[in-house]
Amino acid sequence: MNRRPHEAGQATREAEHGRCLADGIRPFHVMAILARAKALEASGRSIVHLEIGEPDFPTPEPVNAAATRFLSGGQVRYTPAAGLPELRERIGRYYAERYGTGVSPQRIFLTPGASGAFSLALAVALAPGRRVMLADPGYPCYSNFVHLYSGEPHAVPVRAAHDFHLDADLCRTHCGGEVPVAISASPSNPTGTVMRAAVLRELVQWFEAEQGILISDEIYHGLEYGGRPVSALEFGDHVFVVNSFSKYFGMTGWRLGWLVVPEAYAAAVERVAQNIFISAPTLSQYAALAAFSEACLAELERRRRAFEARRDFLWGELVKLGFGVPAPPSGAFYIYADCSAFTDDSAEFAARLLEQAGVAVTPGKDFGTQSPERYLRFAYTADIPVLQEAVERIRRFVGG
Amino acid sequence: MNRRPHEAGQATREAEHGRCLADGIRPFHVMAILARAKALEASGRSIVHLEIGEPDFPTPEPVNAAATRFLSGGQVRYTPAAGLPELRERIGRYYAERYGTGVSPQRIFLTPGASGAFSLALAVALAPGRRVMLADPGYPCYSNFVHLYSGEPHAVPVRAAHDFHLDADLCRTHCGGEVPVAISASPSNPTGTVMRAAVLRELVQWFEAEQGILISDEIYHGLEYGGRPVSALEFGDHVFVVNSFSKYFGMTGWRLGWLVVPEAYAAAVERVAQNIFISAPTLSQYAALAAFSEACLAELERRRRAFEARRDFLWGELVKLGFGVPAPPSGAFYIYADCSAFTDDSAEFAARLLEQAGVAVTPGKDFGTQSPERYLRFAYTADIPVLQEAVERIRRFVGG
Repeated sequence: MNRRPHEAGQATREAEHGRCLADGIRPFHVMAILARAKALEASGRSIVHLEIGEPDFPTPEPVNAAATRFLSGGQVRYTPAAGLPELRERIGRYYAERYGTGVSPQRIFLTPGASGAFSLALAVALAPGRRVMLADPGYPCYSNFVHLYSGEPHAVPVRAAHDFHLDADLCRTHCGGEVPVAISASPSNPTGTVMRAAVLRELVQWFEAEQGILISDEIYHGLEYGGRPVSALEFGDHVFVVNSFSKYFGMTGWRLGWLVVPEAYAAAVERVAQNIFISAPTLSQYAALAAFSEACLAELERRRRAFEARRDFLWGELVKLGFGVPAPPSGAFYIYADCSAFTDDSAEFAARLLEQAGVAVTPGKDFGTQSPERYLRFAYTADIPVLQEAVERIRRFVGG
Repeated sequence: MNRRPHEAGQATREAEHGRCLADGIRPFHVMAILARAKALEASGRSIVHLEIGEPDFPTPEPVNAAATRFLSGGQVRYTPAAGLPELRERIGRYYAERYGTGVSPQRIFLTPGASGAFSLALAVALAPGRRVMLADPGYPCYSNFVHLYSGEPHAVPVRAAHDFHLDADLCRTHCGGEVPVAISASPSNPTGTVMRAAVLRELVQWFEAEQGILISDEIYHGLEYGGRPVSALEFGDHVFVVNSFSKYFGMTGWRLGWLVVPEAYAAAVERVAQNIFISAPTLSQYAALAAFSEACLAELERRRRAFEARRDFLWGELVKLGFGVPAPPSGAFYIYADCSAFTDDSAEFAARLLEQAGVAVTPGKDFGTQSPERYLRFAYTADIPVLQEAVERIRRFVGG
């Protein structure tokens, strides 16, 4: 970057300045789908939205009530960088209650969304050029985060037969002789698949033996439809776990997540937190204390059952229509469906499905490079009557 | 990083993994002061806190009321990544009203605190190894952010005679032949000094001519005690401006800031925002709409006058006690005072001032490497009776 950019004769200042960390970040294709869907709606068309990764349920009432109570006090100050001590403790107890494994509050950091948790974890995991293994297909933000923190995202093709998950064998093969660093996710976005406990155990233990860094994304925990969730924390203390109040707890707009770190990293992570976000939103932290109340957890269990019923309905109907669902969608609110019976270009299919049938879904190419043209992601963040309408529209569209 | 860390025989996993981005981040010395102050208070001692960079006023009532109203609706969803359109528009109009320069809402991004704004700006400004010029003394988070984004912080010694600010001459001398990148701040933390309009104009115009990147930190704007604030945006469109609802608007715990970008960068910045924080806190954004109401701005003007009276009092008393204040503290809520009449080690002086006199202040070494042992930062985030008590304690301590 010693050349003077105005000598290069390029057109925009962005180009003139040359490469930057953000260069590796491509726009999500779903943004174009969403924009087109909104334009169609503005012109009077009815659109069914199955492209959106945000729960349709409102903030649980006990959480809203706690926020309103706190607001009447009027003191919305910074909290400590690591978060409110009482919330760190409450989350530690939640691990004991739900997973049977206690976690020291000193290892728990409240963050501005799960996004903030990834920033903290990557700041202590990465150095320029360090490889980070990621499942392909997987959540596209991971590789963009790794780019921003000057790491090298390394796509690991994962198989439907292995529920689209990383495992110890794959990481051994793909770590390239370096200290292994990986982000795993269960339940997975986009596949909705849950990693089997034995696979997760082996993965955690292999990273521990290799003295590597495993970041386990558990933001869809609580939204499982076939048994209790299993956390990486059950299999070792030398793992980073990312979680969030957004999905299961229905608190997306509150922007509150958390990170559990190995004890040896706590001091470094706290220093990073002090610098890169000072503290997570205060009101959200006080509100979140109410998310663990009995009344709130009962409401969340009703919602989980509603998601399960939607999952059952949509999965069955998609298969009847001729879509393939090669790995069981046992968590989150996504079905990653094989549409190769209808097209060899899922992105073009998604565009036509929107234009002609008024159903918005996300094409596979947002999630990686492994046969993305075969796949569409359906989000069941809408109620069953809406899903029925979507299925009818798709049936007419594919002529089934 | 191809060596296997367990071959190195180091003790902790953190060390075993070798260097990481967070290595460049040192803890703030003020954290030790704060911890010690709290321990002394817990043991029954009275402590006057002049070390804290958080306004002592509560959230303005119109903001709280707007948040409570919004909560009763119960839908705290994600907003667009760039922020609520109506808030982007309102901020654009604020620039017209307050600074006489319209800013297109398309250039304005709502962020999780000013911290989020720095992340966005650095993601499009930096590539590994790129130099970023920073005033020394200055706000320590800047260099830590630059480390995390793999840039090279470059400390530029700034002089009291120049109000401790960067200027075009200094940047010309220190850019090292590269495309210049700098963060400037006015009013400054820790010095409380305001950059003269002519200096800011020349700085903005020089960066534009050099096709470089200037990030102007204006988070203390509104807290000026000698004339209206001047924004870098008044002197050109090719500048990044960081601002926040934390300080002037009294909304620290709401974690809401904003970034204004040159138009050519808007698309790239939006992609980064979608990835690294999805959106800023929703409730805070709706609440912030009320921050521009007439009633709120009138309350903020009363608070500004209160800060001004405190500044007048503390500045005068410190000078009477024998401290030097070599550049006028015309903004924010800080006085950067020369204590070399009493000590040649301001950190040791600060520690004794706390232990023996019960007054907590921040030592200069948190802010850079340029004669930090001569300086202490006093924050006047406490009311005048409290400042009087602090002055009496300091008077007894220095035997004046």
